[in-house]
Amino acid sequence: MADKVLIYSRFPKTMMARFAERFDLLDTGGKPARDVFPADELSGIRALLTGGAQPLGAEAMDQFPKLGAIVCYGTGYDGIDLKAAASRNIAVGHSPGANAASVADIAMTLMLATTRRILVADQYVRSGDWAASKQSPMMRPQAGMPGRRIGVYGMGEIGRKIAARCAAFESEVGYFTRTKYDLPYQYFPSLEALADWCSVLMIAVRAGAETQHVVSADILGRLGADGYVVNISRGSVIDEKALVAALSDKTIAGAGLDVFEKEPHTPDALTALPNVVFAPHIGGHTLESHVAMQNCVLANLTAFFEGKPLPYAVKSA
Amino acid sequence: MADKVLIYSRFPKTMMARFAERFDLLDTGGKPARDVFPADELSGIRALLTGGAQPLGAEAMDQFPKLGAIVCYGTGYDGIDLKAAASRNIAVGHSPGANAASVADIAMTLMLATTRRILVADQYVRSGDWAASKQSPMMRPQAGMPGRRIGVYGMGEIGRKIAARCAAFESEVGYFTRTKYDLPYQYFPSLEALADWCSVLMIAVRAGAETQHVVSADILGRLGADGYVVNISRGSVIDEKALVAALSDKTIAGAGLDVFEKEPHTPDALTALPNVVFAPHIGGHTLESHVAMQNCVLANLTAFFEGKPLPYAVKSA
Repeated sequence: MADKVLIYSRFPKTMMARFAERFDLLDTGGKPARDVFPADELSGIRALLTGGAQPLGAEAMDQFPKLGAIVCYGTGYDGIDLKAAASRNIAVGHSPGANAASVADIAMTLMLATTRRILVADQYVRSGDWAASKQSPMMRPQAGMPGRRIGVYGMGEIGRKIAARCAAFESEVGYFTRTKYDLPYQYFPSLEALADWCSVLMIAVRAGAETQHVVSADILGRLGADGYVVNISRGSVIDEKALVAALSDKTIAGAGLDVFEKEPHTPDALTALPNVVFAPHIGGHTLESHVAMQNCVLANLTAFFEGKPLPYAVKSA
Repeated sequence: MADKVLIYSRFPKTMMARFAERFDLLDTGGKPARDVFPADELSGIRALLTGGAQPLGAEAMDQFPKLGAIVCYGTGYDGIDLKAAASRNIAVGHSPGANAASVADIAMTLMLATTRRILVADQYVRSGDWAASKQSPMMRPQAGMPGRRIGVYGMGEIGRKIAARCAAFESEVGYFTRTKYDLPYQYFPSLEALADWCSVLMIAVRAGAETQHVVSADILGRLGADGYVVNISRGSVIDEKALVAALSDKTIAGAGLDVFEKEPHTPDALTALPNVVFAPHIGGHTLESHVAMQNCVLANLTAFFEGKPLPYAVKSA
């Protein structure tokens, strides 16, 4: 009989297909598990699969007395209370690096789309305004990529891929992380210093309690009127209210956002802004990224049920 | 007294400001010169500034009996009848490479925006459909950049910059030009072979009579249902009717277009398509690109009026 795995978050069925071949999936569809499955079924659950951003604390863990493994689909695990898991001997796994290229590429897409104002450009052609020789909204040239100062906040696998791509665009690349690495980019010892220097701030830091709202009104102000912010990490890293204010009063020029504080909810004041390019958290959503993330999930679940350590365990867990 | 320069095409005044400091500009605003200036004024014109795509043949040249220099703003000069100019001892100048990075970057922007479906993504968030948990139009994951086969047609300065950028995205890069170069990319001996191999065709070839409609229904068909075409060269290189048909019946997946056959006119059947990202010929339209192009224009005009050869002369002229 196949081992049982509880699907704790809401995932499309197609993303679960490879797991269904190997395991007996109890799919909550993102609803509370107790509302979907009888208590005696839940009491036997030893492993669950979740989205790393979804809150999963001590109380939730205690619904499943036999729980031994929490496996996150994707690289993030910011929703998981790691201390609570550790104290219950629950292993936590994720998919490190599996989606790094895909996420770095959505960062590049959002940066280019925003700085080259592609939504405005597309609409000018599509509406017929260009054909009618109406005044172009693109008249004032914008700064391009060569020589542009790109500040990367976070230098994990995603940050490094963003940096490498930006360098190929002939941009200058700087970064801030707590640790200085041996990398061919300028290191800044604080986020403030990075924001003072750069014109595009790329947020690629691993999110957690200590990064909550660190991209504040002050940091945005340091980017300046020609500055942009791109976030592909987690919405929690930016103070979203401060961002709406900075974009509305032109404290900064624009933003590219794949992540938001309370997904899928986005403030109307934000989505009404013309100087933002939005994406619905699709950074890791490419064919090869899903295959790589699923490989990690399968390896983690298989190892767990064989009584082995998770090959892709969260390091601090 | 400052030397006179006829502004033959329609240019924004801001783009002419640096020239106005050095020369006496006769600005046609893109209208026929004879309608704007008296014949005796035109008869003294020795140099004109034009957009390289605007037709300028023998008859037009003969309006200006003393014409000695045609200076194109930008890299293109496909509108100029080079034989007619040569037979009249008219030098033709342009701005080689000045806008290469800017144009390569719009190619990358269009490719990423198209393949990652950023218009659809933005609209899904902006409309509130995501917040309302309506069915996502992004459900089916798309192929990303790592391992994607990018075919670059043309390996001048723009093509090389596109290739270098794509390589940084971990894509495979192939190219077709008449000449095989010593480059770290796979060479294909024909456009057909390149189109059979690649999933994104990047058109970066210098346009002219011999490239008219070479990207035909046959070439588009070879790209296949997962294929994309991006054009930042000239609209004339693609058979636009065949492109509309291929996009409409899903022969190919999508397109990113900065240039069109009859700018600024674009067929309604084209602009109605959801699987295209449009830009109004803004490839070279960045601050640093304009500065570089203006440097070439100033150097060409200054040399001409000093009786010297144009430093940025069109090579085949």
